Amino acid sequence: MLKAININDKLNKFSDLWSPKVIAEMNDYQFKLAKVKGEFVWHSHKETDETFIVLDGELLIEFRDKKIKLNKGELYIVPKGVEHKPFAENECHIMLIEPKGIINTGEKSTKLTSKNDIWV
Amino acid sequence: MLKAININDKLNKFSDLWSPKVIAEMNDYQFKLAKVKGEFVWHSHKETDETFIVLDGELLIEFRDKKIKLNKGELYIVPKGVEHKPFAENECHIMLIEPKGIINTGEKSTKLTSKNDIWV
Repeated sequence: MLKAININDKLNKFSDLWSPKVIAEMNDYQFKLAKVKGEFVWHSHKETDETFIVLDGELLIEFRDKKIKLNKGELYIVPKGVEHKPFAENECHIMLIEPKGIINTGEKSTKLTSKNDIWV
Repeated sequence: MLKAININDKLNKFSDLWSPKVIAEMNDYQFKLAKVKGEFVWHSHKETDETFIVLDGELLIEFRDKKIKLNKGELYIVPKGVEHKPFAENECHIMLIEPKGIINTGEKSTKLTSKNDIWV
């Protein structure tokens, strides 16, 4: 019997914020889990769309001219090149799906820039 | 305020089995929801890996030499070219993530072959 990837088990293995952890790879895409709280930085990903799925809590994604609120069980795909800034008032758990090699802060290097390709 | 894609709301919009419905697109990939029950057909996708996430219920995926059981909140990525046969004893709700254009029965055309690119 092969072993499934249990999303909650993987979430229980880390606690650092804004530091996406890879749990699976599909072709050249990765599934990442992240715990977030507070305000992230404005950034964009010029080369790709980016999928957010909220697993627990509530995530706000601000755009320059609008915003979106994602509750548990909701999904949104930020189009490539679009500047966005995630925010969570309380700790929120999310799954990100995007091509391998994408940096969390996009083209900007900030103190919130996370190491890439860290598996959990 | 933009509108999030609510996975449960989308699931409530259809009831046909083994008929994946697209809910979102990321680059050239699609997120699809499906309701499944009973036995599917042996098939493979020569050109791509395929991601299964169980949203509700329990899914068994058989391979020629092993199998895997996925419960709610579990994920598995079937490698490209690997023959597999999904099975669910009771109705099970899943999310599939794979490139646009992938047919549910792979290279085989059977009575379970579903229309492709149907959005819900």
